[in-house]
Amino acid sequence: MAAELSGWLRVIGLGPAGAEWRTAEASEVLARAQHVLGYHSYLARLQQEAAALPALLDPSAVLHGSDNGDELARARSALELAEQGQRVVLISGGDAGVFGMAAAVFEAIDLGPARWRALDVRVLPGVTAMLAAAARLGAPLGNDFCAINLSDNLKPWSTVERRLMLAAQAGFVIALYNPASRTRSEQVHRAFAILRQHRVPSAVVIFARAIGRAGEQLLVTTLEQADPAQADMQTLLLIGNATTRCIARPGATPWVYTPRKLDGST
Amino acid sequence: MAAELSGWLRVIGLGPAGAEWRTAEASEVLARAQHVLGYHSYLARLQQEAAALPALLDPSAVLHGSDNGDELARARSALELAEQGQRVVLISGGDAGVFGMAAAVFEAIDLGPARWRALDVRVLPGVTAMLAAAARLGAPLGNDFCAINLSDNLKPWSTVERRLMLAAQAGFVIALYNPASRTRSEQVHRAFAILRQHRVPSAVVIFARAIGRAGEQLLVTTLEQADPAQADMQTLLLIGNATTRCIARPGATPWVYTPRKLDGST
Repeated sequence: MAAELSGWLRVIGLGPAGAEWRTAEASEVLARAQHVLGYHSYLARLQQEAAALPALLDPSAVLHGSDNGDELARARSALELAEQGQRVVLISGGDAGVFGMAAAVFEAIDLGPARWRALDVRVLPGVTAMLAAAARLGAPLGNDFCAINLSDNLKPWSTVERRLMLAAQAGFVIALYNPASRTRSEQVHRAFAILRQHRVPSAVVIFARAIGRAGEQLLVTTLEQADPAQADMQTLLLIGNATTRCIARPGATPWVYTPRKLDGST
Repeated sequence: MAAELSGWLRVIGLGPAGAEWRTAEASEVLARAQHVLGYHSYLARLQQEAAALPALLDPSAVLHGSDNGDELARARSALELAEQGQRVVLISGGDAGVFGMAAAVFEAIDLGPARWRALDVRVLPGVTAMLAAAARLGAPLGNDFCAINLSDNLKPWSTVERRLMLAAQAGFVIALYNPASRTRSEQVHRAFAILRQHRVPSAVVIFARAIGRAGEQLLVTTLEQADPAQADMQTLLLIGNATTRCIARPGATPWVYTPRKLDGST
């Protein structure tokens, strides 16, 4: 029983880039983990980092990779290991609470045995992709904003459409997560069609790809000019509101910011 | 001219709590700063931290405190110091890009002399308050969400009301920043009146106060039961959508999560 009491589960984000955008707390629990569970490609990133910085992981830590789409099963495995007294870390990309593994863990607990409610489970906050992308650009999230997961794997597409329309009408700067995947490319085109009905053609649109990682790309364009086909599974989209502004710079991507001050209508 | 070229400005968030929720990158630039500018109370937090961990700041770094409301003047001072060749850090609370100093910096550049566009200015992402609060609770931001600054110092109250109404209709989980201040207490009452018209009475409401700091408090209640007067200037509010669930725990604050999966209407 003592072993059971000492087990824990920490749900963390690796940070969009790696070590420099990770919190001190997340690095500290990683170093103490006996088991690390996550999507294959996040584990590969972690192993690559650990090769350069051995202190990142205990050499005896067991890494458990699984496929995208297996989130609930992965969460259950993590909870079972913690219940057995193990020190377990479950990893997501940027922040585990934003379209990451945290919701899957609490779904698993909610649907699981009552004894799981007594486990030592904690989510550790991180830097989510939209904050990393925003920082690279200036301050596009400088006024009210929303985050929408464009995948319709788990919710009806009609809900996504309705949220896009209302978000555009509200004048929110809009962050679109998961605009496309290998098997899903139509949604981002439909999303742009809706946005074009409800937001000015000159609205700033940003394609932020692989921010902080190899192959980072930033494209600043307008709703009128944007080609939705440029979004892939590593892209985060930001759609400015009617007040979002670009500051041209010599020889560099323009800065983008949304003023804090708003006069009259959105 | 060489001195001018070597100056830089970094706009950072201290993290909602301090060192454990700060990124490695933010800590690294703090240690290199010759000047640190910020709101008095953030500088006080930083000095307190530096007293315990001297490596956090260069002992010769100059701290420039200013009052809340002086953001544009503070941003200009920071830009002027960077232009003079100094290494300058401008600090916010959680993440500088979310209702923090980043927007003020780019407003100052946009309105300022053209030469400021050639300065070495970068925003570093951080952990914003809603991510820290969400992590403490479980995964309340597990589905689409928005962030609204409830202050009407810089935008018309009618815009805030309209955004609240549309956000509630869209089924977003809603994070409300700056619900109240010493001089502003009416807005949060009006906001709850609007939310009560457009969201189910059983919707989960969370008062997250001073998360990660001394005096941290978490209150999980419902829209029907919530007393808006409990929000103060250190409070972040989270309003769940119709699917947000609580998981009761023996002897602890319930976990709160918003399922990833959504059937039918929001």
